[in-house]
Parts: sequence; structure tokens; C-alpha cells
Amino acid sequence: MSLKTVGVIGGMGPAATVDFMDRLLKATKAPTEQDNLRLLVDCNPHVPDRNHLQPDGPQPGPVLAQMARGLERSGADFVVMACNTAHAYEGEIRAALTVPFVSLIAETAAMLKARHPQVKRAGLLAASGCLDARLYQDALAKNEVETLTLDAEGLQRFMTLLYEIKRGDLSDAARAEMRALADLLIAAGAELVIAGCTEVPLVLAQPDIAKPLLDTMAVLVERTLAYARDGEALPAA
Amino acid sequence: MSLKTVGVIGGMGPAATVDFMDRLLKATKAPTEQDNLRLLVDCNPHVPDRNHLQPDGPQPGPVLAQMARGLERSGADFVVMACNTAHAYEGEIRAALTVPFVSLIAETAAMLKARHPQVKRAGLLAASGCLDARLYQDALAKNEVETLTLDAEGLQRFMTLLYEIKRGDLSDAARAEMRALADLLIAAGAELVIAGCTEVPLVLAQPDIAKPLLDTMAVLVERTLAYARDGEALPAA
Repeated sequence: MSLKTVGVIGGMGPAATVDFMDRLLKATKAPTEQDNLRLLVDCNPHVPDRNHLQPDGPQPGPVLAQMARGLERSGADFVVMACNTAHAYEGEIRAALTVPFVSLIAETAAMLKARHPQVKRAGLLAASGCLDARLYQDALAKNEVETLTLDAEGLQRFMTLLYEIKRGDLSDAARAEMRALADLLIAAGAELVIAGCTEVPLVLAQPDIAKPLLDTMAVLVERTLAYARDGEALPAA
Repeated sequence: MSLKTVGVIGGMGPAATVDFMDRLLKATKAPTEQDNLRLLVDCNPHVPDRNHLQPDGPQPGPVLAQMARGLERSGADFVVMACNTAHAYEGEIRAALTVPFVSLIAETAAMLKARHPQVKRAGLLAASGCLDARLYQDALAKNEVETLTLDAEGLQRFMTLLYEIKRGDLSDAARAEMRALADLLIAAGAELVIAGCTEVPLVLAQPDIAKPLLDTMAVLVERTLAYARDGEALPAA
């Protein structure tokens, strides 16, 4: 048995990182403590906010690159990041690493194609920074899948809700609002909804909506296990 | 605001580490994501089992020392460990660090004295490795508190239960068994019960027992916040 050590760029937000670790632990179903994966986690909530950047202010890229370097230096065999929006800085992270970076965006796009090949229009619940960087729109377009996003009013509601979740609001009202936003995408023609922000699944689950939910956090858990435990070949560094 | 970065020696077991992070996050009650603490976590389930050591086999001390060094090198201002039993190797960890190590044992003993000064006999639910190292017995004796431990049969039941919890068993049966073991200590005269293993509070809470429960994980959360957020002076390195 040769388990790989997983570096985790986290803290965006910290609840999403804890959720990732918790789900990974439960999915591992290790017969003994020692059969679990070793995780090196930099849970850093002080990364500049990806959705409210000042042009002259601190930028997330250099901070994320430094975190990635630290994880590699500490022994990570590959690095993942438990935040969709921060993948806008994937280039800077990769440039800082000599070990592979497993992209949540690329893995989600690949899983959408493999598991839901009939889907031609995917609804996307994601933060403004993620939408602006066109992470999913461009990745899905390569597979000839159209990305449906919320309109300006819907996005404003989503962002308000997102920051309430980041403050710890996992209430029924928060759940109802996320479900209403997912329903807007379905009404617009989405054949599947991508929970494209790691805070979304904290308040939205498959039973809540009438179309398939593609939970990017679940993708990250499944793919991390495949690479770290099951010996699947990693993408190139 | 100058928050300190917390290094966390974890993975013993991983569920206890996730529990620590989750509780710390909830206790922080940060108004924004950026007000949370930065945690550097080495969640390493491959530390040799503290309760089943082979004299000629791998020892936990050097592994824990290496983890501690890595956390300091990555930027930890102080280091904590989310496992009671592994404090048997506290000396090796301290020797590897130039930043302070906050001892869960010392903090628990101090909190017992401060909050429950009337208690003269404390019951201890702890693993065999923790008992053998006399971590709590010696620390409490300094404050003239006697430590009551389970008898051989009770300890065997505790260890069986502990390894079931480490495999993910948080069932009602597991809860009932932990409660029964706590009740044995109370029947023997314990005026308070110390959950002296980070797995214990996963299946035992204050309402379950008739005497005060001193949850060492709660102590670690509270003291970590005091040192990292509230500016309390750290113990000497």
C-alpha cells in the first residue's frame, strides 16, 4: 500500500475545508486509523477575498502560490484546493509547484462528460469571481456543454446568501433561498445544476431539486481518493 | 488585529482533528471569513499507534517531532496537538520546536483547578497509552487532585470502544457504552469526569452523565482561541 500525501489549499472558507476533510474521511471508510490519507492542510482564511478585489490591493494569486509551495515543501505528493473561485489563480499555483495540482474545475468538467453525457445545458451556481474568470463556462464549452448562469438580480441574491453562509448561516431560510436560486436555473432550461462553489452543498442537496445536482465538493473527494489511495495516474505537474 | 497562526499536529485520529477544526471555527464566531484563524494542519494518521507499540518497532516520538518542525517551518506561531495520548511524547515535540507548544494536559489541569476547585477526585476516561504515561495522574496530583481510572476490565472495554469509534462507529450503542464507562468512574467516587481522549466527546456529552464533564477537546478549542485570537501570553517555548 502506498498512499499519497494530499496538500490542501483551504480556508476559503474554513467551513468548506472542514466539510472536505469530513467527507473525505467518511468516504475513505478505512478499516484502521492508519489506513486513512495523510492531509497537509493550510486552512488560511486570510487569502484576499476573491470576489471583492481592489485593483491596487492585495491579490490572491501570490498568497495561494506561497501556500502551495509550503504544502509541497512539507511533503505533499499533489495539491488540491477546496474552493472553486480561487481556481481563477490556478496558473500561479501551478507555476509555484513541481508536484501536480488537481484542478477541481477540470475534474468536474470531466465527470460531467463521463456521467451525464446527455446534458447539453448545465446550470451553474457560482460566485461572481468564478463567473468572471469563466472557469466553468470555458471548461464546459470544450465538451460542447452550454453554461447557464443566474441573471444580475439572481447573482446578487446568490452573493448575499454566500456571505451569510460564510458567516455560519446554515438555516432553513438559507436552504430555501439556495433551492430557489437552483430552481431559477432549472426554469431557464438547465438539465443539471453544478454546485460550483464549495459553500453551496453546505445548504443544498440532491433531494432539494428536480434535476441532477453535480456537487463539486463530492467530485473533489472522489477524485482525491482515486489519486491518493487507488493509484490512479495523476495529471501532469 | 494580529491573529496568530496555529500549527495542529493531528490525525490521531482524523475524526478528532476534524472535530477540533469544526469546533474552533464555530467558537470563533468570526464576523467575516478573514477574521478566522489560520490553521496549519498535519493530519497524519500514519503516526505509529500510541497504544500498541512494539519495543523494536517504529516509535511515535520522532514522527511527531518531524510533524512539529514542519508546522513551525510553514509558519506556525505555536503548536497544539489534538490527541491526549500522544502527549506522552511532548518532550520530543518541544525539543523539535523553537515556538511554544501548548500542552492539552497542562491546560486541562489548569482549567480543572480554576473552574472546579472543589473537585478532589477526578475520573479519567483515557487510553492505555495515556494512562501508562501517567499524563493526567501526575499533572492533577500537583494540584492535589486524585485521578480515578477504570479497572482492567473497564479499560479493556474502553479500548475496544475507542477503536470502534476510530473506525467510525458513533452509534447509539457506542454512546451507551461510553456512558456506562463514565458511570463506573462516578460510582467509584469521581466528582467530575475528564474526557481524556479526543475520541470520547464524539460519543459523550454533558447531558449523558450526572457529574460535570471536562471535555479536553473543548479545553483545547477555548485555549487556542485565547492564545491565537485574544492575545493571551503563550507559555514559554
